Amino acid sequence: MTEGEDGRSDAVVVGAGLAGLTAARELVKDDYSVTVLEARDRVGGRTLSHRLADGERVDLGGQWIGPTQDRVNELVETYDLDTIPQFDDGLDQIAIDGVVKEHEDALRALPSAAYSELMDAFGRLETLRTQIPLEEPYSAPNAEKWDGTTVEAWKRETLETTAARGAFDSLLRALFTTEPSEISLLYFLTYLHAGGGIERITGVEGGAQERRIEGGAQQLSQLLANELGDSVQLESPVRAVTHDDSGVIVESDTGTYTGSFAIVAIPPTLAGRITYDPPLPARRDALTQRMPMGATIKCIATYEEPFWRRAGYSGFVLTDDDVVGFMFDDTAPESTTGALVGFIAGETARTWSEREASDRRDQVLADFARYFGERAGDPLEYVEQSWSNEQWSAGCYAGNMTPGTMTGYGDALREPVGRIHWAGTETATQWCGYMDGAIRSGERAADEVSRRLA
Amino acid sequence: MTEGEDGRSDAVVVGAGLAGLTAARELVKDDYSVTVLEARDRVGGRTLSHRLADGERVDLGGQWIGPTQDRVNELVETYDLDTIPQFDDGLDQIAIDGVVKEHEDALRALPSAAYSELMDAFGRLETLRTQIPLEEPYSAPNAEKWDGTTVEAWKRETLETTAARGAFDSLLRALFTTEPSEISLLYFLTYLHAGGGIERITGVEGGAQERRIEGGAQQLSQLLANELGDSVQLESPVRAVTHDDSGVIVESDTGTYTGSFAIVAIPPTLAGRITYDPPLPARRDALTQRMPMGATIKCIATYEEPFWRRAGYSGFVLTDDDVVGFMFDDTAPESTTGALVGFIAGETARTWSEREASDRRDQVLADFARYFGERAGDPLEYVEQSWSNEQWSAGCYAGNMTPGTMTGYGDALREPVGRIHWAGTETATQWCGYMDGAIRSGERAADEVSRRLA
Repeated sequence: MTEGEDGRSDAVVVGAGLAGLTAARELVKDDYSVTVLEARDRVGGRTLSHRLADGERVDLGGQWIGPTQDRVNELVETYDLDTIPQFDDGLDQIAIDGVVKEHEDALRALPSAAYSELMDAFGRLETLRTQIPLEEPYSAPNAEKWDGTTVEAWKRETLETTAARGAFDSLLRALFTTEPSEISLLYFLTYLHAGGGIERITGVEGGAQERRIEGGAQQLSQLLANELGDSVQLESPVRAVTHDDSGVIVESDTGTYTGSFAIVAIPPTLAGRITYDPPLPARRDALTQRMPMGATIKCIATYEEPFWRRAGYSGFVLTDDDVVGFMFDDTAPESTTGALVGFIAGETARTWSEREASDRRDQVLADFARYFGERAGDPLEYVEQSWSNEQWSAGCYAGNMTPGTMTGYGDALREPVGRIHWAGTETATQWCGYMDGAIRSGERAADEVSRRLA
Repeated sequence: MTEGEDGRSDAVVVGAGLAGLTAARELVKDDYSVTVLEARDRVGGRTLSHRLADGERVDLGGQWIGPTQDRVNELVETYDLDTIPQFDDGLDQIAIDGVVKEHEDALRALPSAAYSELMDAFGRLETLRTQIPLEEPYSAPNAEKWDGTTVEAWKRETLETTAARGAFDSLLRALFTTEPSEISLLYFLTYLHAGGGIERITGVEGGAQERRIEGGAQQLSQLLANELGDSVQLESPVRAVTHDDSGVIVESDTGTYTGSFAIVAIPPTLAGRITYDPPLPARRDALTQRMPMGATIKCIATYEEPFWRRAGYSGFVLTDDDVVGFMFDDTAPESTTGALVGFIAGETARTWSEREASDRRDQVLADFARYFGERAGDPLEYVEQSWSNEQWSAGCYAGNMTPGTMTGYGDALREPVGRIHWAGTETATQWCGYMDGAIRSGERAADEVSRRLA
């Protein structure tokens, strides 16, 4: 079910991440022909699973899934994959004003004034986010006001204590891999709401970090690509899309592909780097200039055993006082080895992406050791992935909206341009920024195109 | 003085606007060989002069120059061009809460409470902006705080009356062609400071709108290009820059050019759309994701005479209540015909760029007529230029920094990447966003490269 007899596909899909592959699969289900063009030599986009020396697979990209992420859960079930619960027993650790505190729930280790103002702030955010219509956040009652300010400004207004502010910054970096100054309050609320609220989005059990996929999240894309067979073309970065009333011509480094429709399933920033003829409408082009990518370096170290568990630690750390911003136990249940994963997030990720790999390794392991003792500084293996250095992601997890973007250009996010449709987790109305959102966006774009093909 | 004997230039310059052409000219002065690659079929970038039916030239792009803009003034003198003072006699008009008021100084037509709080706000801005070191605004004493908030949030905090807020919005759109929600307070202060403060930047006599160039501002680029002769290649959009320790290879639609150095003299957003091999460092790439272009449609109508002058009007209008955001008398002194120029700016420019040209003409002329009577609705000629629809500008006047950008990535603005140097008005430390800044940036980049070539 690749291209038609005349070499023309019903749809040319740009990007073989979860969004693009899902869109292609849905179209093929409806008996349409597709070609999927992927810039990299692999599928999976911002998911990337890595085989460690001991044979275990770890995720250097998207990793966790949780309840209400119905589309990714269904895909996991379709492919009969197993999931692994995220380990979460024992004491979390949190750096507060330079000192490390412990508690079963990291935030409860905050001084009580800080904890209570943080909980009040969360309560306010929960009230605000429910006022946002997810299909059109720019129609929220206070959209202009919320989009006119940064999360940083809101935080300075709302939180007084340095401990609460620090914890808030750390959480924001963990969720968005960006600085609170960079994103609009309206976008922040929209994102929270799209994920079902703060508890859901930050939680392990019952939350977005509940489980991971045994064998790695990239499998989903690999299995989708297997289904699609020859229609997926690797190492084919798309440079130009020419489009008119009769169809699309997509130029990549491996050739030119024609189709009735195109689905561009890459982050808005990267979509903006393709040349369009005719050029994109001003508002769509402007949108691609206003959703800069977050930045993260994901760092995994393995040890003979998850020794921190015996010391009573869950492995979870939240800090604004180290290069690594947050850590989790990343041990596979049936593995003989233990693993820790740390994320360098936001501005620190970009700065550290320019450092020598060995400096970075030393620093990350020193950060691990601060929380789990000297033994954490001496791993069996250390692997890392800097997503800011990936040309075909230009950052990670996602493109985030700067102030003024949602109200100014938000309606251009999913609006097709002629025969060009848009997918990618950034375009999702539920779980945007997550694997689940990517799949939803692919389904939505395929549905749009399918209706026009019918 | 184009390329060397082996076909390799000392420098390949990307972009034949004022920045790129100036850089090339400076290098040629030092006896270096250059190739300038321009995407369009013309030079001048964001300057564009248009010949009206009566033979008069008007500027559809950058137009005004003023005192302290030493570099552009020097270039005007070098080429022996004449300048025309901007007409500014008579009554300005300003729309306040839906009503039009008149005064010789538009802002003085505001209700006194609004005027005085606006003047207080300007006073505060003047105090703040002088605290910014122009070479490194991210080192300002309150850089983090100012960069953590939008101009919109600052305005809501600072101004109470709707009249003052409306006037502030109008001025901001006139200066930045963007919404106050989109730019960082730190960037705003930096830009004001780079132009010598509010009075200088908003003024006519003694200010940035003091004079224009007889025959049009694009002449500067045309004359520079004439000097450079064959080394300027038009219709050569640059797609890729490969660079290493030994030099650069620049691929354009008309061929591949090699050089010892590259100077990329286009807005950061567009620089980010070129493919680099190796890819740009994470922080530089991130910067290109965080300087979205402003938007403006410049609209000029001509009449048998500047009839508004006889009615006592200067032709200047400031409004947040029309599609056109501000207007000026655009009559040439020795011309028999009168002319008005109106700018649609910011979000409105993008929305209206998607409307039919005839609707836009009707609306703009209706806006002119609101201020100058029915006669303004019936011009001899009407011309316009929508810069958001220009693929090789992607907006106008300039790329503006979103919150968090200056502190997070500001030091990547001029920092060379290997053998790639950066120019363009956005990189100027004086008069950034202006023609003068473009010239300064070209001189600075040429100087950097010249030192490395020596």
